[in-house]
This record gives sequence, structure tokens and C-alpha cells, in this order.
Amino acid sequence: MNSSVGGGSKNSALGAPAHLTSINSDGTYSAMTWNFASGPAALPSEVLAEAREMLGRSPSLVEQPFTEPPVTAMADEAEAALRELLDLSAEQRVLFLQGGAFAHFAFVPLNLLGRRDRAEYVDSGLWGGRAIAEAKRYCHVSVLASRGPDGSLPPPARWNHDPDAAYCHLVSNETADGLWLPDFPDSDRVPLVADMSSDLLAREIDVRRFALIYASAQKNLGIAGLTVLIAKDDLPGAARPETPTVFDYRLQLRERGRINTPPVFAIAVAGMMFRWLLRHGGVAAAARRNRAKAARLYATLDGEFYRCPVAPEWRSGVNVVFRLPDPTLEARFIAEAEQNGLWHLKGHPAVGGIRASIQNAVPESAVEALVERMVEFRRTNG
Amino acid sequence: MNSSVGGGSKNSALGAPAHLTSINSDGTYSAMTWNFASGPAALPSEVLAEAREMLGRSPSLVEQPFTEPPVTAMADEAEAALRELLDLSAEQRVLFLQGGAFAHFAFVPLNLLGRRDRAEYVDSGLWGGRAIAEAKRYCHVSVLASRGPDGSLPPPARWNHDPDAAYCHLVSNETADGLWLPDFPDSDRVPLVADMSSDLLAREIDVRRFALIYASAQKNLGIAGLTVLIAKDDLPGAARPETPTVFDYRLQLRERGRINTPPVFAIAVAGMMFRWLLRHGGVAAAARRNRAKAARLYATLDGEFYRCPVAPEWRSGVNVVFRLPDPTLEARFIAEAEQNGLWHLKGHPAVGGIRASIQNAVPESAVEALVERMVEFRRTNG
Repeated sequence: MNSSVGGGSKNSALGAPAHLTSINSDGTYSAMTWNFASGPAALPSEVLAEAREMLGRSPSLVEQPFTEPPVTAMADEAEAALRELLDLSAEQRVLFLQGGAFAHFAFVPLNLLGRRDRAEYVDSGLWGGRAIAEAKRYCHVSVLASRGPDGSLPPPARWNHDPDAAYCHLVSNETADGLWLPDFPDSDRVPLVADMSSDLLAREIDVRRFALIYASAQKNLGIAGLTVLIAKDDLPGAARPETPTVFDYRLQLRERGRINTPPVFAIAVAGMMFRWLLRHGGVAAAARRNRAKAARLYATLDGEFYRCPVAPEWRSGVNVVFRLPDPTLEARFIAEAEQNGLWHLKGHPAVGGIRASIQNAVPESAVEALVERMVEFRRTNG
Repeated sequence: MNSSVGGGSKNSALGAPAHLTSINSDGTYSAMTWNFASGPAALPSEVLAEAREMLGRSPSLVEQPFTEPPVTAMADEAEAALRELLDLSAEQRVLFLQGGAFAHFAFVPLNLLGRRDRAEYVDSGLWGGRAIAEAKRYCHVSVLASRGPDGSLPPPARWNHDPDAAYCHLVSNETADGLWLPDFPDSDRVPLVADMSSDLLAREIDVRRFALIYASAQKNLGIAGLTVLIAKDDLPGAARPETPTVFDYRLQLRERGRINTPPVFAIAVAGMMFRWLLRHGGVAAAARRNRAKAARLYATLDGEFYRCPVAPEWRSGVNVVFRLPDPTLEARFIAEAEQNGLWHLKGHPAVGGIRASIQNAVPESAVEALVERMVEFRRTNG
């Protein structure tokens, strides 16, 4: 999303959208769109410009041996920026691997079960469910808690624990269902493991409570093709013998992720994302902006024309999911939104409805444009 | 590597290198270097310019749902260009996955063994050996042939076959050892599987003989973070139950690689690489250029000051490996080459010596500059 040079998103007198325009770094103008994609999500224009600049150097970082100082220094700087953003402890190590979170749904049990054959999982929604299905290939899954029809879960204090579990796994934010966990279980009882693909760096989380955090990059950490892991030195368990070498977390930690060629460009973009966030106030400021954006959208849901299927305290602060009175209206809403430059508002295919993802790079002006569109659509269709 | 606006690589009268300069797409000038990196390897300047342009669109392809038409069309176009380059048959399907070839050293046996517990492997060098070590986690490995001290192997007709093998695996080019297989075994006896990370699109290979080909992208297919698979519809075996879902080849083939978020930017760059090669004569023309470059370099190896450790008929056409009389001279050669703008000539750490990788994007002028440097270095140090 490029920087706006206009204000508001009013339609012209003819009813056609007077798209905002933006200036690209090369001086060209492009029609302004607001991008509400869940992921791959909107990226800051500053980061895209820096990425273009990086590819223009000769030779660029993507054309060099990954063991050479220009590349290792880039990865070290990216890690340092992430450590600063999250205030990681000395025991917490950072790994830049491939695979995506879905791949790590398998690598987590392969790496952490050790001799145990049980793990705890929270069935919080689409992604929690997929993590469970994948873990069942490797062990018995004890489901601690399940999402109810109103998108709520019992509070962690009431979860049914498994004393023999190797670890406790949760998905901290469910992008498809539009809910997140407002609180996490106690980490003294069992090592906590979380897929934070969609809320890492978007809200304040005490990351030191987690033995392992992993996140696909394509929300707030850059582009698809990178999984960022934050692992404590004393990970539970041990890699099972069938764990592929390049996804053996302990081996990769020992070799600093350099057992195989890392996804250099995606790591470079992640570093740009981390430094962009540091320049813009860090995680606390992003969380504050995201809270304001989410509050504005949820306040627009009147409970009749626009209904949120998630109980208030479980509503995600980054994926605002809502329904209209019927699917025909939802399709019309999405089509008219696109005509007005508001893109990628379609809900996850498995869920339907509308989803506005408002990750760090989505500005408040995008949310204002969406609210305006919602009000207008209700006025003409309500 | 940006486009040259000068010729030759003569030193100035003062002995300092008069670096060639290149014009970047943003109009800036940069010092010219010749990049002999094995991988991540040099990319064509046209491709880097196109990649920068792609990141400048609003919204860019890396900020959109991967199931939306702009992204799926991009992937379809990349596949179509690859099909054209390799003249793939209708039974051959293309997959764009993550992991890198090293990861697929594990996923190949997981996907192809089925109920069998044996597979044939060729121990052709560093990468063949790593593929074997990884396969041993999952099955008995029958080594068909091993690289001798002179970098040669017995011809395929003399390999010791295993009648119970699920498949026969080979690495078609060994980047570290500087050898490639001039011929491949019969594909009627057993399904052939090959890691072609470093020679796919660089030489003419009858790819239709292979049940499965896989290749890391960071040589001739773009940037790190992408593995291209070419799989026949009737792959042998079946995925073992412990295969991670996103690396289950059959499931991904059924879903066209869209079970999880693909590495969108790396796929886009691969498409740019494929179209670049089509514009420049396709694989046959690239193979011809690479043969000429390799012949020029091997002809410069006199067998005394510069020695190639590989028997002539096994010498790689893309990784020209050679030694100098002692490691001190080798270190000096590499340092002086860098001072003269000839980068990344250091041999693989496990092998030592010198390695000049001359993949598709390395121009003949780079090879001429290297030959000139070799002649000069021998004159002053021989």
C-alpha cells in the first residue's frame, strides 16, 4: 500500500469512485486501493521501496553465498531488530526457516515430543483444528478446550490438562474465525508452544512465557516463504529420528539456521519490517493503533445488519469478521467495496462472510474508508 | 549482475582494477563485478529489474491472497513457461513448494517408498552423500555407484541394481565436487528421481525419463526459498503417514500446490527467469553458451599450475572446480580476484580450492575476465 496523497474516499458526483492516488517511489502515480488481505497482507510502502532498492544493488544480496558476511550480517541485523521489538531474553533464540506455519504443525510434534506420545492442543478454530489434525499423525492429542458456537472458549483456568503432555500448543489468533486468545495458560506446568502467525508484533504478548513461538511471515513479518521461530535454549523433548535434518530445530539452532540455504530475500524483507516497526514506535504503538482500528470497526457492527459471530471478549484485534443478513448481500458488499478500492474483504472460504484484516501496515485511513462504505451500504441496502 | 557498458576487464596503468560500471534501472552507477557464486547465484539484470517493478505495483503480488486470480495467474504463467522450456509431457506436473532440495532429501523417501523399505542412490559427491544420509532415516539405501578419487563413477550400465528398490535417486550435478553425470540409467527398470538443483535449464536433459525431478531455485530458477518439482502423475509408492501434509506430493499435486501459502515472490521470480530464458533461446541456447564458457575455463587449466580434480568426461559444465599448487596460493588467487571484481570463487568449504560457477546468468565476458585473471596470476605466481 503506497502512501496516500489525498484524504477521504468520497465518491465523485457521478457516483464513480474518485480513487485516491499515491506516488510510487519511481515517481509514477497509481490508483489507491485499501488492502484488507489476511495474508499475504499489506506491506508498508517504505518496506516495499527498501526491498526494491535492495534488489537494485550489484550484486544484490539474493545473488551471494548465504555464508558470506553481507548475507549473514543482514540476517543478524534482522534478528537484532526482532529481539529489540520483543525484548527477548538471552535464552530465547531466533531462527529463520522455510515451510510456513502449516509445515511446522508437523515439525513441532516431531521436534518436541521426545519419548512422550501426548500433547495438549487448544481447538480455537480453523487453524487450531489444522494443527490438531497434523499433530495426530505423531501423537495422542489432548484437546484442552474447544471454540463454542459464539466463538468463545472457556478461560485457561478451566482447561482440562493432561499431566503426561509434552507441551501445550495454541494458535494465539484465528485469522479465519476472527477470534484471538485474550489470555494464555500458565507456563510453569507445561512448556507453551504457539503459532503466532497473525498477531506476533501486532499486540503486546509476554513472549517470554513461551518455550517456542513460530510465525509465518506474510502478515506482519513480510512475505510468504519464511517462518520465524523463537525458541528457548531448553526446548522440551528431542527430535524424533524421522525429523528432516533441515527442520530439526536443535540442529538448526546450533548452526544458526545455516544447515541449508535460508530464504534470503524473505529474511531481508523481515528485517525491513522489523526496522519499520521500530521507527514507528515498536509493538506497543502498533498494538495501540490496531486497538483503535479494531474498536472503530467493531463499533460499526450494529448487531442487526452487520453481525459479528464472535463473543466480544474473544474478538480478534487483527481480523474483524462479520456477516450481513444473507450471502447475496455479502457478495454485493464485497463487489461494491472492490469498486470503491477496498480490496480483499472476502471471508476465509471455509467460513464465508466478510473479513477485514487490519494488520500493522493497514492505516487508520483504510479503516475509515471501510466504515464509510459500510455506513453507505447499509443506508442503501438495509 | 547489471548490464555492462564497458568491455574487457583491464587493469589501469596504476595496477588498480578499472572496474566496469553498470547502469542500474534507477539511473545510478555501480561498480561492475563478476559473480561466480554457486548459489544463490547471479541473476540476469533484466529479471532483477522486473522483480523491482513487480514490487512497485499497488497492491503488489506479494500482498494479495494466494488464491486470488492475480497470484494464481502468475503461478500458472510461470508453470507454462517452464513447460515450454522443458517440453514437458502431459503426465508431468509442476509444483512450487518450499523447503530447498535438502528438505526434499527427506520428503522424497517419505513420499515414494510406500510399502517398500529400499531405494537406490548414487553417491556422486557431497550432495549425493547428503541425500543418502537423509534417506537412511527412512529406508535401506542401496548405493549403486560411488565417486572415485578422480571424480569419476562407473557408467550407469555397470551399476549394481537392487531389484527391491522403490526408486533410483541421483544428483545430476555436484556443485561442490564439480562433476556431473554425463548419462543417466535406464528408466524402464525403476522410477528415476533426480535432484537437478544446479543443472536444470543449464544443459539439455531428457526430463521425460524421470518420475520426479526437484530443484532448489537459487541457481537457474531464481531466488532461495523455492523448490520446483516436476512429478509424473503416477509417482511410485504412497506418502507414509508421518509425511507433513504440505510436503505430501500427491496432496499438493491434487491441490496445485495451494494447500498452504506458496512462496509467492520466489515463484514470480522463477517465472521471470523462465521467460528470460525463453527470450534468449531456451535451454538449447543456454546449454550451448554454458558449454562454450566451460570449455574456455577447462582449456585454461594446464594440469600443472591449475589442476582439475575431476576426470574429463565427468567435469561439470556449470561448476568448474580447480586447485592451485598450495592453499596459500589459492587464498591469494581468491583475494586478488576479488580485488579485480571477480567474486565468490572460493570452493565449497567441505572441498576447498577454487570454484567458478557459470550458470545461465553468468555472461561469457565474465569467463573471459576470469581467464585473463588466471593467466595473469600464473604469470606472476607460477
